[in-house]
Amino acid sequence: MKVAFIGMGTMGAPMAVNILKGGHQVTVHNRTREKEKPVADAGALRAESPQEAAVGADIIITCVSDTPDVEAVILGDNGVIYGSAPGSLVVDMSTISPTATRNIAVSLLQNDIKMIDAPVSGGSEGARNGTLAIMAGGEAADVQRAMPVLEAMGKTITHVGPLGAGQITKAINQIVIAGTYLSVAEGMVLGMKAGLDMQKVIQAIAGGAAGSWVLSNRAVNMVSNAYPLGFRVRLHHKDMGIALEAAKELGVTMPAASLVDQLENGLIARGYGDEDLSAIARSIRELSGLT
Amino acid sequence: MKVAFIGMGTMGAPMAVNILKGGHQVTVHNRTREKEKPVADAGALRAESPQEAAVGADIIITCVSDTPDVEAVILGDNGVIYGSAPGSLVVDMSTISPTATRNIAVSLLQNDIKMIDAPVSGGSEGARNGTLAIMAGGEAADVQRAMPVLEAMGKTITHVGPLGAGQITKAINQIVIAGTYLSVAEGMVLGMKAGLDMQKVIQAIAGGAAGSWVLSNRAVNMVSNAYPLGFRVRLHHKDMGIALEAAKELGVTMPAASLVDQLENGLIARGYGDEDLSAIARSIRELSGLT
Repeated sequence: MKVAFIGMGTMGAPMAVNILKGGHQVTVHNRTREKEKPVADAGALRAESPQEAAVGADIIITCVSDTPDVEAVILGDNGVIYGSAPGSLVVDMSTISPTATRNIAVSLLQNDIKMIDAPVSGGSEGARNGTLAIMAGGEAADVQRAMPVLEAMGKTITHVGPLGAGQITKAINQIVIAGTYLSVAEGMVLGMKAGLDMQKVIQAIAGGAAGSWVLSNRAVNMVSNAYPLGFRVRLHHKDMGIALEAAKELGVTMPAASLVDQLENGLIARGYGDEDLSAIARSIRELSGLT
Repeated sequence: MKVAFIGMGTMGAPMAVNILKGGHQVTVHNRTREKEKPVADAGALRAESPQEAAVGADIIITCVSDTPDVEAVILGDNGVIYGSAPGSLVVDMSTISPTATRNIAVSLLQNDIKMIDAPVSGGSEGARNGTLAIMAGGEAADVQRAMPVLEAMGKTITHVGPLGAGQITKAINQIVIAGTYLSVAEGMVLGMKAGLDMQKVIQAIAGGAAGSWVLSNRAVNMVSNAYPLGFRVRLHHKDMGIALEAAKELGVTMPAASLVDQLENGLIARGYGDEDLSAIARSIRELSGLT
């Protein structure tokens, strides 16, 4: 297939490389042009703009930072919408607002261009290894059409519902993560202040109902008070903004997610925004006088 | 070994049966005497009181509901302390206050009776199958001495630290569970109000960083709004009281645990105390107008 890929960030660049490896023809574009080079070295063509990249493509993938960035590369000056052929398919793999997603799709549809949302989880490691979890929203036929390309990037590809459902699912992922990190942090700080051997505590509880990916993989960061990446506080906080906006629109009360969002405000203000999300334990440690 | 076992509840009775199966001699006592019968049928002797059960026992196990119950059966009239021989070992497997644990141990030690705390997780199913996780606190030699009996009841036996450390670890378990249930509930309600197929959503996120025992095993309850046991709200709420008391004594700020504790107050008041803990989703559903 002929694929355009807009956004050569930490996620986008390795994802585009995996599409190349899958045997597809890929044209890439990035606002900061030199970031296209490593992917061009791997065999991709380069384009001057999102518009130019989209010309002749069957599928146009966008993977950029936030809602305004997606709006800009698709609908803005020299945007995808001006290069895409009628009948082509836009696949937005960014994590953005589900409402904005539906609005962008309406604009595209006026030009006979289809769209699905397909945000991912699994981090830069998953992007490199082609093992991302991809949560796709849109019409079944469109998701099916994108499948050969999605399968080059991800291990688990789930069609969760209509357009925007992928973004809601990603929001749910971030909401669940939020409270899990916070409660693991609370438990770890209680144990540390009680003087327990936290390695043994984690071992004692990880196999039962308290077990989680966070407990098995990030509780040790909280105990050692060192937070190597992983997944940045700043990015999770952006996603919590999307989740809380969706909660407001849908009328959902999310006290734990809101609490984490507030603690992240403070973490970022104190200069910890580029640490791993397990740095949420800093808040509980500091509030509890654990230095 | 000669073992006394005080407390023939949902947990204690099957645990005592497993000790019998392990080849030990067991004498049981329960305040409501007829609850001793099934265990006596399996081969246990019966005693009129905790004191009488303790006479001649190497190890005296207590497994009752709450701190005052443990104080009563060990230190109260006809309590374990009046029957136990110097050099014998009390193993408290109830979930109670770590501070009360240390106070009881001091009283026992004045009569040359040793004590360890060994609360469990894994529920009535784990008690029946001998697959409990046992979190032991106390001196290493005492934990070692109890090991043949603990191994008859549990799969994972971890010596987590000095006396009371088992209770702190159990509190940590319940704290971690609390926030995980709450955040899974928030995510599920958001998805339901957005009209998503929640089975697919769970499948899409359970394998990644949002994964937990709660998400894999209890999120379906939240979606179907039916909460079969499992683990009672009422019992988790009792344990949260212990956890929050420990947090107060140790000086730890636990906003998520406190939030769950408050929501549980309301759940119990509304008549949901005997449902599974996943009923925490009722709070988020009702606050969000999802009927």
